[in-house]
Amino acid sequence: MSDPDPYQRAAFPLRNRLARLLWNVVAALLFRPSPRPLFGWRRLLLRAFGARIGRGCHIYPKAEIWAPWNLDCADAATIADGAVIYNPSRIELGSHAIVSQQAYLCGATHDIDDPAFALRSAPISLGAYAWVAARATVLPGVRLHDYAVLGLGSVATRDLERAGVYVGVPARRVKTRRIGDDAGGGR
Amino acid sequence: MSDPDPYQRAAFPLRNRLARLLWNVVAALLFRPSPRPLFGWRRLLLRAFGARIGRGCHIYPKAEIWAPWNLDCADAATIADGAVIYNPSRIELGSHAIVSQQAYLCGATHDIDDPAFALRSAPISLGAYAWVAARATVLPGVRLHDYAVLGLGSVATRDLERAGVYVGVPARRVKTRRIGDDAGGGR
Amino acid sequence: MSDPDPYQRAAFPLRNRLARLLWNVVAALLFRPSPRPLFGWRRLLLRAFGARIGRGCHIYPKAEIWAPWNLDCADAATIADGAVIYNPSRIELGSHAIVSQQAYLCGATHDIDDPAFALRSAPISLGAYAWVAARATVLPGVRLHDYAVLGLGSVATRDLERAGVYVGVPARRVKTRRIGDDAGGGR
Repeated sequence: MSDPDPYQRAAFPLRNRLARLLWNVVAALLFRPSPRPLFGWRRLLLRAFGARIGRGCHIYPKAEIWAPWNLDCADAATIADGAVIYNPSRIELGSHAIVSQQAYLCGATHDIDDPAFALRSAPISLGAYAWVAARATVLPGVRLHDYAVLGLGSVATRDLERAGVYVGVPARRVKTRRIGDDAGGGR
Repeated sequence: MSDPDPYQRAAFPLRNRLARLLWNVVAALLFRPSPRPLFGWRRLLLRAFGARIGRGCHIYPKAEIWAPWNLDCADAATIADGAVIYNPSRIELGSHAIVSQQAYLCGATHDIDDPAFALRSAPISLGAYAWVAARATVLPGVRLHDYAVLGLGSVATRDLERAGVYVGVPARRVKTRRIGDDAGGGR
Repeated sequence: MSDPDPYQRAAFPLRNRLARLLWNVVAALLFRPSPRPLFGWRRLLLRAFGARIGRGCHIYPKAEIWAPWNLDCADAATIADGAVIYNPSRIELGSHAIVSQQAYLCGATHDIDDPAFALRSAPISLGAYAWVAARATVLPGVRLHDYAVLGLGSVATRDLERAGVYVGVPARRVKTRRIGDDAGGGR
């Protein structure tokens, strides 16, 4: 029997909550205490929980991944210490995308006009070489195109264009990143 | 004998510091490591330290409560992981009020014009169904009226009106929340 | 042999990484778990790792110091719990300077126009009696002059003048702090 108070109903089905419970136990025992240089070990743990993690990804030990099975990282992506990946819906990082310290990819919100305050999640994606700087936040449904930059502490409320540099709350475009044709690494 | 340098004097009396020391030890051993679903257990701990906690409150294990004896939560209030309740003065949450992840109810500041940099605390209150979204901050003395919403990462520097939705640093009213007369849960 | 992908090269030389590894182990075992009142003990640990720490400094146990050997605190400076001192370059705190809870002195960024995304660090300094309030951020190369105040959650992108009070993202000057000639503590 569900709770008569809609605010008191669980936002996620039991199966999801059990999976996260198991992941949280594993994360507390094997992921977070792992020495920083053991990036391969953490990639292994995330893949065991269903994440798609490319080669050379740098996922730091204090990164918080809500649901590994909804995380998709292309090669050489980075998620720093203290970054929060809140992904009830899928979150994708392109090749060489970077999520810096304490940045927050916030993949869900609540419908404030709904008496039940229902959770609304939507996918987030970062293109290749996109950078979410320290303490910045990306809202549900937002896409950063390739090479886009979200400045420190800024909040992306809508899509960021290719190679655009955005700052502020909410983030506004302030300049364009230079992308050399002759640059290495596929740029 | 008090320190001749006013900056070096303790901001709180010894009795307060000892009480918080005891609470911090209990929190480290019994509260923070408790499994997420044990909401009843954490309500019990908070009440043992003088908090008034209503039925069905969801206080998450990584929530940080500075002084339980200054916390007053009506039924079905929620304080999420990483939220910080800094309450040298009283902080009250109305029925169904929600403080989301890493939100910060900051109940004290310093008098910058005072050579002793004295601490100034003031109560904070959230009305019924008020929502402080993730990473948002509420300053000392601020009241959120019923159904008010403070958006992600926003900073409330003055009172928020009933059912107003506020965003930005400092927070400005951007719209009004719809409150159905026929909605469940006493709305 | 360095990695052919410039994004994959280590940002810091091996010697630096080993020193930080050692410091992180010591911090995890001896610094962070230390009881709050043991300020002398934490000063001792920081000095053992090369920090210059004056008399009566209050460094709290959950403060995060990236590289103690690049930290220089004059007498009676304070670094609160959750504050982050990210100092690949030197960070200096003047006498009675305060870095509040979860504030972030961010001493490095990346060159977004460089195909190798090179790290660029620059020193940060806080003058005497300067205050970085909770959750505020100071960018690389920024200097807060004596008595300057950076408000809660604000981001300092350029130097703050003496006794100026700044708020917002980016921080703008909103008023002037009163500094009494007759005040104690050398003001």
